[in-house]
Amino acid sequence: MNPLVVGIMYPPRWDIRPPERYAADIAALQALDPRIEILECRYVEEDPLRTERGRPGSASDAALRARAPELTAEQRAGLSRIEVALVADLPFDVADLAPELRWVQSVAAGNGQLVSAGLPTERITATTAAGVNGVPIAEFAFSRLLAHFKGHRELDERQREHRWKAVFGALVSGRTLGLVGVGGIGGEIAKRAQAFGMTVYATRRRTDRPAPNVDRLFHPDDLHSMLAQCDAVVSAAPETPDTVDTMDAAAFAAMRPGAFYCNVGRGSFVVEKDLIEALESGHLGAAALDVARTEPLPAEDPLWDAPNLYLSAHCSSDARDHFTGVFGLFRENLARYLAGDPLRNVVDPASGY
Amino acid sequence: MNPLVVGIMYPPRWDIRPPERYAADIAALQALDPRIEILECRYVEEDPLRTERGRPGSASDAALRARAPELTAEQRAGLSRIEVALVADLPFDVADLAPELRWVQSVAAGNGQLVSAGLPTERITATTAAGVNGVPIAEFAFSRLLAHFKGHRELDERQREHRWKAVFGALVSGRTLGLVGVGGIGGEIAKRAQAFGMTVYATRRRTDRPAPNVDRLFHPDDLHSMLAQCDAVVSAAPETPDTVDTMDAAAFAAMRPGAFYCNVGRGSFVVEKDLIEALESGHLGAAALDVARTEPLPAEDPLWDAPNLYLSAHCSSDARDHFTGVFGLFRENLARYLAGDPLRNVVDPASGY
Repeated sequence: MNPLVVGIMYPPRWDIRPPERYAADIAALQALDPRIEILECRYVEEDPLRTERGRPGSASDAALRARAPELTAEQRAGLSRIEVALVADLPFDVADLAPELRWVQSVAAGNGQLVSAGLPTERITATTAAGVNGVPIAEFAFSRLLAHFKGHRELDERQREHRWKAVFGALVSGRTLGLVGVGGIGGEIAKRAQAFGMTVYATRRRTDRPAPNVDRLFHPDDLHSMLAQCDAVVSAAPETPDTVDTMDAAAFAAMRPGAFYCNVGRGSFVVEKDLIEALESGHLGAAALDVARTEPLPAEDPLWDAPNLYLSAHCSSDARDHFTGVFGLFRENLARYLAGDPLRNVVDPASGY
Repeated sequence: MNPLVVGIMYPPRWDIRPPERYAADIAALQALDPRIEILECRYVEEDPLRTERGRPGSASDAALRARAPELTAEQRAGLSRIEVALVADLPFDVADLAPELRWVQSVAAGNGQLVSAGLPTERITATTAAGVNGVPIAEFAFSRLLAHFKGHRELDERQREHRWKAVFGALVSGRTLGLVGVGGIGGEIAKRAQAFGMTVYATRRRTDRPAPNVDRLFHPDDLHSMLAQCDAVVSAAPETPDTVDTMDAAAFAAMRPGAFYCNVGRGSFVVEKDLIEALESGHLGAAALDVARTEPLPAEDPLWDAPNLYLSAHCSSDARDHFTGVFGLFRENLARYLAGDPLRNVVDPASGY
């Protein structure tokens, strides 16, 4: 009986759950089939390299390739055996290093690392963890939206001054929210926004497919038309060559005066200089970014002190429970793989996500 | 044809809308019947007196009566003519001053000012604006809940330090929210909490009546049992003799360790010293108060600096649109009054609200 070697490759420190939770998830994988052999075969890159490799075109960037860590003999041996892998980072040209590899499941929602490693290929299917983060990121984006509409920072200032002064917020109910991209995260935001009495618009390539909790769909080509009709805009779009620099000066100018913008997708979606200008001029009421083009963001970056900007360090997901969702999806996909059924969240080489 | 004199008595500065909005609302009232005569007949008390008159027992408090402003001749003349009044404050014993008065509509959700003025009587019906504030106050309470679960204050600190450090929040989905009182505000909170995937419990005297979006009802006598099963608790209860000091040391001790408490009802509902102790000991994770027992809260009050307390100055409603809602309700009730139909939001002298 040939073993089915499953490599566990993501950075172990990312799973901050108690160790028994990880052990239970591994046991649940092994329970699927006696042929399964779990192989710890970690491969971890530095944060800045990871950010840059997430960008389109990184697969052919010689400077990035030069910064990739040298593989140890143990890593090479592991890669030579694995048929399936659960990954965050991956070496460049992984198909050449892993001749048995047939399927890679990412622990992340985006496909940037997979594409950067030369996936998918005809031999190797790639799947993302899109949707696993939908609920926590939707909660986070909506928390930022409410904090702005209800004036939390001004309330905090009055409290620090010990000053009993009413600071009335604005109603969310009756306003319009625009979602740039309505996948796993956007769909969860739409559900919550509708319960808050908001009208929900969204962009999507396939405007003919139904989108639950969305009142009106716009084609991505009509993004600026949608922006002009929204009081708040949230983007949670994947990183593809089409989405880089989507939110530029023209996009911010198209937004309503005083509107709120929030990005919980990828940093490259926003031209940060243009966002800062839209905040400094007062055209935008406020913005929230959980991602930046350079991560970690250098201490001297002007984003930190941009007026009315809520900044956070790529932490809108829920790290405490994230890997429970990841292993749930991986186990489901592994069962499908064993049965020869189609996998969930397959990266489509044509559409780029 | 006898006129139907409608007195407009609430503090004019409370309506911060453009003047044409007020004019349009008045015109809409007059359009109901040619007999209607609108009489501006303002009566305004100082904030501290208003707060104290909102409390049970204030009608018979001689010290408070001595602090009430002297009525001008114009005010006395106006009161002598009005049959209907739209009010915030009211003189003590208003029934004696206004022999034609048949119905008083408050611009506030609570009935404290009405009861303090000796209403309702057999001759004079009293109605509140309960429900008008439901949506904005529900939005506010939920915004505070999310800000705590998502760690906004810690994120703000990291931003001030220019420090890119992930601060992962906690999931709201899957947790349990307890509502102390499920009237106009609580019902709106329940709807939003369910869309966020929370289980919703609530207290209510009539546990046999259905409560939309509530998974389980508890009798008020079982409050502590409910508190013990909740991750977050919001109270939006009216002020009655039964509700004063409801949230005391025993109630906070009954709550789960690390739980969140929010009060958007009346300040007298909370024993503030006991709340501060529950925060200082770390038993409560955080709390939010939009109301205090003494308003305005003195600068030296220990509440200002209580750890993990989000304090605001009775501003959870939406002042910008509040009077649009009030006039909508008043116009509907005035049409019912003219037709002899039952009014909405009638104060029941037996139940106290």
